[in-house]
Amino acid sequence: MYGDIRLLGGTSTPDLAREISDYLTSPLCGRDIIEFPNENLFVRLHASARGQDVYVIQTTSMPVNRNLMELLITLQTLKLDSAARVTAVIPYMCYSRSDKKDQPRVPITARLVADMIEVAGADRYITIDLHAGQIQGFFSIPGDVLTAFHLVSDYFLTKRAAMVDPVIVTADLGFAKKGRNFAAKLNTSMAFVEKRRTGSDAHAEAMMVIGDVAGKDVIIVDDEVDTGGSVTQAVDIVRQHGARDIYLSFVHPVLSGPAIERLRSLNVKEIVTTNTIPIPPDKQLPNMTVLSVAPLLGEVIRRAHEGRSVGELFNE
Amino acid sequence: MYGDIRLLGGTSTPDLAREISDYLTSPLCGRDIIEFPNENLFVRLHASARGQDVYVIQTTSMPVNRNLMELLITLQTLKLDSAARVTAVIPYMCYSRSDKKDQPRVPITARLVADMIEVAGADRYITIDLHAGQIQGFFSIPGDVLTAFHLVSDYFLTKRAAMVDPVIVTADLGFAKKGRNFAAKLNTSMAFVEKRRTGSDAHAEAMMVIGDVAGKDVIIVDDEVDTGGSVTQAVDIVRQHGARDIYLSFVHPVLSGPAIERLRSLNVKEIVTTNTIPIPPDKQLPNMTVLSVAPLLGEVIRRAHEGRSVGELFNE
Amino acid sequence: MYGDIRLLGGTSTPDLAREISDYLTSPLCGRDIIEFPNENLFVRLHASARGQDVYVIQTTSMPVNRNLMELLITLQTLKLDSAARVTAVIPYMCYSRSDKKDQPRVPITARLVADMIEVAGADRYITIDLHAGQIQGFFSIPGDVLTAFHLVSDYFLTKRAAMVDPVIVTADLGFAKKGRNFAAKLNTSMAFVEKRRTGSDAHAEAMMVIGDVAGKDVIIVDDEVDTGGSVTQAVDIVRQHGARDIYLSFVHPVLSGPAIERLRSLNVKEIVTTNTIPIPPDKQLPNMTVLSVAPLLGEVIRRAHEGRSVGELFNE
Amino acid sequence: MYGDIRLLGGTSTPDLAREISDYLTSPLCGRDIIEFPNENLFVRLHASARGQDVYVIQTTSMPVNRNLMELLITLQTLKLDSAARVTAVIPYMCYSRSDKKDQPRVPITARLVADMIEVAGADRYITIDLHAGQIQGFFSIPGDVLTAFHLVSDYFLTKRAAMVDPVIVTADLGFAKKGRNFAAKLNTSMAFVEKRRTGSDAHAEAMMVIGDVAGKDVIIVDDEVDTGGSVTQAVDIVRQHGARDIYLSFVHPVLSGPAIERLRSLNVKEIVTTNTIPIPPDKQLPNMTVLSVAPLLGEVIRRAHEGRSVGELFNE
Amino acid sequence: MYGDIRLLGGTSTPDLAREISDYLTSPLCGRDIIEFPNENLFVRLHASARGQDVYVIQTTSMPVNRNLMELLITLQTLKLDSAARVTAVIPYMCYSRSDKKDQPRVPITARLVADMIEVAGADRYITIDLHAGQIQGFFSIPGDVLTAFHLVSDYFLTKRAAMVDPVIVTADLGFAKKGRNFAAKLNTSMAFVEKRRTGSDAHAEAMMVIGDVAGKDVIIVDDEVDTGGSVTQAVDIVRQHGARDIYLSFVHPVLSGPAIERLRSLNVKEIVTTNTIPIPPDKQLPNMTVLSVAPLLGEVIRRAHEGRSVGELFNE
Amino acid sequence: MYGDIRLLGGTSTPDLAREISDYLTSPLCGRDIIEFPNENLFVRLHASARGQDVYVIQTTSMPVNRNLMELLITLQTLKLDSAARVTAVIPYMCYSRSDKKDQPRVPITARLVADMIEVAGADRYITIDLHAGQIQGFFSIPGDVLTAFHLVSDYFLTKRAAMVDPVIVTADLGFAKKGRNFAAKLNTSMAFVEKRRTGSDAHAEAMMVIGDVAGKDVIIVDDEVDTGGSVTQAVDIVRQHGARDIYLSFVHPVLSGPAIERLRSLNVKEIVTTNTIPIPPDKQLPNMTVLSVAPLLGEVIRRAHEGRSVGELFNE
Repeated sequence: MYGDIRLLGGTSTPDLAREISDYLTSPLCGRDIIEFPNENLFVRLHASARGQDVYVIQTTSMPVNRNLMELLITLQTLKLDSAARVTAVIPYMCYSRSDKKDQPRVPITARLVADMIEVAGADRYITIDLHAGQIQGFFSIPGDVLTAFHLVSDYFLTKRAAMVDPVIVTADLGFAKKGRNFAAKLNTSMAFVEKRRTGSDAHAEAMMVIGDVAGKDVIIVDDEVDTGGSVTQAVDIVRQHGARDIYLSFVHPVLSGPAIERLRSLNVKEIVTTNTIPIPPDKQLPNMTVLSVAPLLGEVIRRAHEGRSVGELFNE
Repeated sequence: MYGDIRLLGGTSTPDLAREISDYLTSPLCGRDIIEFPNENLFVRLHASARGQDVYVIQTTSMPVNRNLMELLITLQTLKLDSAARVTAVIPYMCYSRSDKKDQPRVPITARLVADMIEVAGADRYITIDLHAGQIQGFFSIPGDVLTAFHLVSDYFLTKRAAMVDPVIVTADLGFAKKGRNFAAKLNTSMAFVEKRRTGSDAHAEAMMVIGDVAGKDVIIVDDEVDTGGSVTQAVDIVRQHGARDIYLSFVHPVLSGPAIERLRSLNVKEIVTTNTIPIPPDKQLPNMTVLSVAPLLGEVIRRAHEGRSVGELFNE
Repeated sequence: MYGDIRLLGGTSTPDLAREISDYLTSPLCGRDIIEFPNENLFVRLHASARGQDVYVIQTTSMPVNRNLMELLITLQTLKLDSAARVTAVIPYMCYSRSDKKDQPRVPITARLVADMIEVAGADRYITIDLHAGQIQGFFSIPGDVLTAFHLVSDYFLTKRAAMVDPVIVTADLGFAKKGRNFAAKLNTSMAFVEKRRTGSDAHAEAMMVIGDVAGKDVIIVDDEVDTGGSVTQAVDIVRQHGARDIYLSFVHPVLSGPAIERLRSLNVKEIVTTNTIPIPPDKQLPNMTVLSVAPLLGEVIRRAHEGRSVGELFNE
Repeated sequence: MYGDIRLLGGTSTPDLAREISDYLTSPLCGRDIIEFPNENLFVRLHASARGQDVYVIQTTSMPVNRNLMELLITLQTLKLDSAARVTAVIPYMCYSRSDKKDQPRVPITARLVADMIEVAGADRYITIDLHAGQIQGFFSIPGDVLTAFHLVSDYFLTKRAAMVDPVIVTADLGFAKKGRNFAAKLNTSMAFVEKRRTGSDAHAEAMMVIGDVAGKDVIIVDDEVDTGGSVTQAVDIVRQHGARDIYLSFVHPVLSGPAIERLRSLNVKEIVTTNTIPIPPDKQLPNMTVLSVAPLLGEVIRRAHEGRSVGELFNE
Repeated sequence: MYGDIRLLGGTSTPDLAREISDYLTSPLCGRDIIEFPNENLFVRLHASARGQDVYVIQTTSMPVNRNLMELLITLQTLKLDSAARVTAVIPYMCYSRSDKKDQPRVPITARLVADMIEVAGADRYITIDLHAGQIQGFFSIPGDVLTAFHLVSDYFLTKRAAMVDPVIVTADLGFAKKGRNFAAKLNTSMAFVEKRRTGSDAHAEAMMVIGDVAGKDVIIVDDEVDTGGSVTQAVDIVRQHGARDIYLSFVHPVLSGPAIERLRSLNVKEIVTTNTIPIPPDKQLPNMTVLSVAPLLGEVIRRAHEGRSVGELFNE
Repeated sequence: MYGDIRLLGGTSTPDLAREISDYLTSPLCGRDIIEFPNENLFVRLHASARGQDVYVIQTTSMPVNRNLMELLITLQTLKLDSAARVTAVIPYMCYSRSDKKDQPRVPITARLVADMIEVAGADRYITIDLHAGQIQGFFSIPGDVLTAFHLVSDYFLTKRAAMVDPVIVTADLGFAKKGRNFAAKLNTSMAFVEKRRTGSDAHAEAMMVIGDVAGKDVIIVDDEVDTGGSVTQAVDIVRQHGARDIYLSFVHPVLSGPAIERLRSLNVKEIVTTNTIPIPPDKQLPNMTVLSVAPLLGEVIRRAHEGRSVGELFNE
C-alpha cells in the first residue's frame, strides 16, 4: 500500500539499526552521512527512495543536537526525493524533559522538537517511553509511542520468585503512577522516595521514604538515568531504611557526566536497562543487563508497513 | 499597544465575568448569544471590536460541548470583526483528562480542543490548572496557564496553626508531585492513597494508604472533583486508618452525576474549591468554601493587556 | 488503492448507518462512544483502522453541538490510529445557514465547522444538499456534495400525472433558483411566496404570492424545515390564493420546536422528506413520506473507495 | 495602532485610486509597475512601507489575469518589505461567478483567488458586492464586504416620485433575494424574469415573467452586466409584457464582448452603474449614470485604519 | 501505487503534450478550457480524475499570466475532483528571474509562483532548467528539476570534431558556472563576456571579453533568450575580438519583443534551442535547431508514476 | 509600534552582541543559557519579554548544530513568553551552501533551516551576505539580508591609490557576478580562477586563470573561507601567473580545519574579513584585518524597530 519497505540507519545507533534490519530481513540502504570540517552535515542516498515506505532509525542521544540535526536533514532528503511515506524511528526522544513551563519564561523544547520533525518532512514517528505520555499530543502527525515496560517487567518476572518480599520504589514522584504498573504486574507493594527542601537554605534537601522498605528487596524504577543523582540518593535512603538487595531499572541509559562512576559505586545487585541509547564499552558495568528493543521496533515497523494493528500486540 | 481592552463574557460563567469586570473597572461589552430552536448558536456583538484587545471569558463546564462551541463561535466572530488580538479566557478547560493515548485507538481530545481554539481565531489563551502542564504544549499560540495553588494554599495557611499534625494526601498518584508543593508550603508530611486491582476479578480493587495518617488532620488535595468517586474512597480509607479531621481541596468543582450527594454524605470538616466552574445554589453545601479566581484572572488580563510580566506576580 | 473499506457509524443516525452498511454489504465496525457524567465524550475503536479507508457516518442534527463534537473526536481518533484516509459522511451539515455575514459583527459558523472538520483530521467529506452550494468552497479538502433532488423529484414524477396543473412554489426567495430545477423536471409552472415588512412596525409582515396558484395543485419545496414557520405561512397564503392540493417537500427534516405541531395542523396532502436526519416515532405524521438517502450515500462511498466517478452517476 | 496609512494604486483603476486619495487627503505612494517584453510584471516601491498600514487599490477587471497577478505581486512586495498590515482593496472581485461546483469536475475559482490573495501576503481585504455573500467564507483573513446597494437605491429614491407604479425586476432568480431589498427600500412591487429550456432542444429557451409589469415603470436590477445577454432578454420580455419606462441598474460594469452594443440598442430610459470597474470613454453611453464608490471605499479605509466600526456606518 | 496515469495538456503547449502522450502511449484526457468574454477561464474535465495520478502539462510562456492562471485552475479542479496525486509539469517556469531581492522593495515573484502552485493543489512539480537551482527550495512540495544540458551538449558533441578550437562563452556572469559544465563536457576552453558601466552616465556600458576567442569557434550558452539584447551584444563583441563561427545555445526560447529580428540579423552559424516554449512558425529561423524535451519529460513522468529513480537516468 | 526594543545575545557571539548593544545604547537583557550534562540546552529569561520587540543575536558558526538549536530554543521561549515581535539576527547563516539539489537524493538544508527558524517562532530575520541571494526566498517571513560589501569595498577604496593596477579575482565562478561589483566600485579589471577536472582521474584537477593578472596587485574576493582550499589554490595560480601583491577578502571567517595554517603559509599582503563569526585569538593572524559589522546590524535593528527604511541606507 505504501510502496516497498526501506530501512535507513543514521549514525547514532548503528547496532540497533542492524538488529532491526536482521529482524525484518530487510537491508539497511546505502547512504553517505558526511560531517564537513565546518560541522555542516550532509546526507546522500545511494539509491532512490521514490515511492517507498521509509523508516529512518536514529536515536537522539549525545551528541544530541548533531544527532537531531542529522535526523532532520535525512527526513528532508527523503521527502524531497519523493518517498511515499517517511517514518522517524527515534528510540530515545531528546529534550523530553522540557515538556511544560513549570516556571515562567522557559521553553517547551519537546514541542519544538516535534514541530521540527514535522517540518522536516516526517509523516509518522515511532518512539519508546516518552518522559510524559502527553508529548504525543505535541505532534500533529500520527505516531506509535511504544513502551519497554513489558520487556523490562517480563525480565523481572523471571527473577520474582527468588526475591524477598520485593517492593517497587520510584525515585521521582512524577513516575509514581507508572511505578504502580510495575507493582501490579510483579504483585509487589510500593514505596516512594521524596525529596524536600529543608529550612531556609535553598540547597538543603532532606530525603524521605514514604512506604515500607525495611528487610525487602527493592526495585527502583525510572524512565531514564541521566547524571544518576536522583537514583544515587534513592539507593542511599532505601539502604538507610533497611532495604535488602537493590535493583535499578530504567529504559533510557542517558548516562551523562558522572553517571557511570555513580552507578559503579552504588554496588546494587543489578542494573537493568535497554539499548534505546547505545552504551559504549567503557560505560558497560558488570552488573548491567541491557535488553534489546530491536524486536519491539522491528515488529512495529513490520505492522505499520503492512497496515496491521500495533496496539493488539503490545497492550493487554 | 493592542488597542483598547474589551471584556466579553460568554453564557457559562456570568458571575465570574462580572467579578473580573469589576476588578478591572471595565464593562462587559454587549452581545447577543442566541440558541435557536434547532440548537444552532448565534453570536452578535453590539459594538465593533475592530482594533481592540478582546478577552472572551467562557468556562467549558457543562453543558460542555455547547459551551465550547459558543466559545469558538465567539472567537471567530471577533476575528472576522477585525479585532486586534483575541484572548480566550477559559477558567476550566474541558477534555483535559483526555491528554494522552494510554491505550490504543483512543483520541487525545485535549489536543483537538487546542486546535479548535486556534482555528477559531484565538491569538492567546488564559486558563487555570490544566490537568497536565504538558497540555500547554498542545497549543501553537502562547498562553498563560495560571494556578490556583497560591489562592488555595494561602487559605489553608490561615488554618494551619489550628490543625493537628496535618498531612497532605493525594487521591491519585498522578497528582503526587503537585501534592508535594502543598506539603512543602504548609510544612506537613505526605501520604498517598493507592488503588490496586485484586485477584482475577477486573472490578475488585483494594485501597491502601502509603504513608502515615493515623491521628492526623488530613487534607486531601486534587485538581478537580468530577463524580466524586476517588475522593469518596480516599476519605473512607484514611478514616479507616485513623485520620482525625478531613479537609478536601480541589480547584475545579466539576461535580457531575452523584458528586454532590457523595460529598454531602462524606461529612468532612471543610470542602475548599474555587469558582472556575459556577456552582449552582442546589449544589452548594454548608461546609463548602468557594474561593474566587476573579482577582487572579483580572490581574493577569490587565498585565497581558499592558504588556507587563505575569510570571513575576504569581511565581515566587 | 486506499486500503480496505471500513464503515463507522456515530450515535446520531444508527438506522441510516445500518442501511448503508447493508447496501455495501460491509459491516459497521465496533466502537465505544461513551459520554461520561461530566459530558465529556470518549471514543474507542474495537479494532485498528491502520491503513484503512474509513467512512464515518454521523449527521449533525440535534443534539447539534454534541453530535458535531462526537464526529470531530472520532475523526481525530482515526487519524491518530494511522487510518490511510478518513472521510466524514455528514448527511446533514449543521450551522449551514450561518454561511455569510449578512449583518456586521456576526460569525460565519459554517466556515468554522469546515475548519474544525479539517483540523480534526478528515481527508474528505460527503454531504447532501448544503444550504448554499458555496459552502463547498469553505473546505480546503475535497468533498462530494450530493443532492437528494433526483430522489425527491423522481418521487413526485410518479405522482405528476394525477396532479391538477401543478405549480412549484418556493417559500424563500433564496431557494428560487433551485425551485426552478423542480419546475423544469416536473414540467410545471412556478410561483414565489414573498414576505415583506409593512409600515414602521418591524414585526408586521405581509405575505404575497408572485405568480399564479389558483386552482392548481401546489408543491412547496425547500431544503429544510426547521421550526416550520415559513412553510406554515406559505401554506396559508397559497390556500388564501385558491390553491388546490398542497404538498410539502424538503430534504432535511430538522423539525425543531413547534415544527411537528405546525405540520400536523397544516393538513396538507403529503409531506415528502428524507432520512438525512432521523425522525423519532413521535414526530412521524401519517401523511409523511420519508425517502432513504442510504442507496445514494452507499453508492457514492463505494465509488469513492474504488476511485470511480461519482459525477457520472448523479448528474445528467 | 497600525503605523501610518499609505495608499498604493495599481494600474487597473487609476481614477478611482485618485478619488480615494482625494477623499482621504492622503497621497498615492510612488511605485513602478513594469511589464517586461516577456510579459513578466515587476513592482518597485519608491519608498519603504516598513511598519505602515498599506491599502492596495486594484480592481480585477480586464485584463483579468494580468491585473490579478499585478495585485498579488504588489501584496508580496509589501509583505517582504515588512509592511505592518496590508489590505487588498478590490472593488470588483474576478472569478466570483465560479463560486460552487454546480456540475462535476469543475473548479471553484473564487476560492482559489481567495487563497492566492492570502498566500501573497494580504492581512485583510475590502471588496464590493460579491456575486455571493458566501465568498466571504472562502477567506481565512478578515475582510469588509461592502455594498453599493445604498448608493444605488438612494439614487433611485430621488427618482421614485416621478415614476409610474414602479416594479423591481430581477433578470436572474439567483438575485431574487437581493432584488427584494430594492423593492422594500423603494416600496415597490416585484417581478421575476425566468428562463426555461423548452422541449428537447438544449438551446431553445422560453422567457417568462412571473409577477406583473404591464403599465409599470420597470427597474431591472442585477449585480453585474457581463455580455449583456440576460439583461437584453429581460428588457425584451418585460417590454412584450407591456412595461412602461425601463431602467437598468447593476453594480459592476464588466461590459465584455457585445455588451455595449447590446446596451446601446436597448434604448432603455437610464442605465445606472458604478465605477468599481473603469468604463473607457468609448463604452460610455449617453443614458448611462456612473455613481462613484470612492467615498464608500475611502470612508471604510479611514475607519479600518483608525480601528473604528465600519458596520455602524453602512448598515441600518 | 498512485492509481492510473493520466495526462492532461493545457492550451499553452499542445504539440509538446501530444509528443509526451505519444512517448508514453497514453492519451491526453478530454477537457474543456474556455475563456469567457470577460476573460475568466473555466476548466471542465470530460471524465473523472478520482484516484488517478495526473500530470498537467502546461508551460508558462506568453500569454504568461493567463497561462499561469489556467494551470492553477486546472490544478484546483483536479484536487477538488479527488485526484490521488497531481503533478504540475511546467517545461518553462515563468517569473524565474525574479528570484531574489537584489534591490530593496521589490518582490521575489518566483516564490510567489511556487506558493500559488502549491495552494492550487499540486502535490509535485516537474520543470526544466530553472534560472537558479535555488528556486527548488522555494517549493515545500517535492519536484523534479530536470536539465536539457545533456540534450543540448550531446547535440554539440556530434559537431565537436568539425569545429575549430571551440570555446564556450557565457553572456552573463551569473551563468559562468553552468557554462563550465559545457566546457568540461565538450572539452573546450572558456571565456566570459562582461558588461561594465562606464563613467558617470548610467546608460553607457562597455563590453569586454575575459579570456581568449580570437580565431576560435564560439558557442555562446545561456539558459534563455528573452529580448535577445545580451546575446546580441555578446555576438558583437566576440566578433570584434576575432571569433570564427559563432553558435548560440539556450534552453528556453522566450523570444519576446525584438528577439527574432535581432537573432535573424546576427547571422550566426546555428541557433540551438528546445521546445520548452513553442516557437510559432513566424519565429522559426532557417538556422534554428529545436531539440525536443518530450522524451525527457515523458521518461521522467513514467518513472515518477512507477516510483522508480529519476536521478539514475539523468545524472552521470 | 512594536513595544520596547530588547536585545538578547546568544552564546555564540558575545562580543558582537555587546558592540551592537553599545551602538544602540540598549542593554543586553539577562538570560540563562544552560547546557545540561546530557547536552540538552535550556534557556530562561531574567525578565518578561511580553509585548516587546526582541532581537536575538546569535550567529550559527561552530559548534554549528548546537548554536542553531540554542537560537531555535530562544526563539520559542520568546514566542511562548508573548513577545510582540521576535527577530532572529543571524550574522552568518549556517548550511547556506546546501541551497540546491545539484545532484539527486541530497537535501536543501538551507530551506530546512529557514523552516526551523519560522516554526520556532521568529517573525523576522536579519542576516548578512547569504551564500546565494535566493535563500531569502526560502523564508515565508520577511527579512533583511544585508551585505558587508560596502564595508569591505570602502576599506579597499582607502588602499586603492597605493595599489599597482589592481585586479579583482574570484576563486569560484559562482561568485563571478558579485566579484564584478567589487571591480566596478574599485574601478579595476577582473579575472577568474577556474578549476577543471583533467583526464579520467576524478581527483586530478587543473587550475587556470581566465583574464590577466601578471604584474598586477590581486584582490581575491569570496563570501566565506571554510577550509581555505580554494583560496590557497587561487593564490598559488595567480602567483604562478605573475601577480604582484595579493590580498584576500571574504565576509565570513568560517576558518575550519586546516584553514588557519593554510592562510598563515600563504604569505599574502593582507587578509580582510569581518566579525560575523568570532575569530578566537589563536586564529588571528598578524596580516588579518577584521572589520566590525556591529554598526551595520545596530543601525538596521534601530530602523526596523522604528519602522523606518533600511534600504535607503544601504543601497545607492
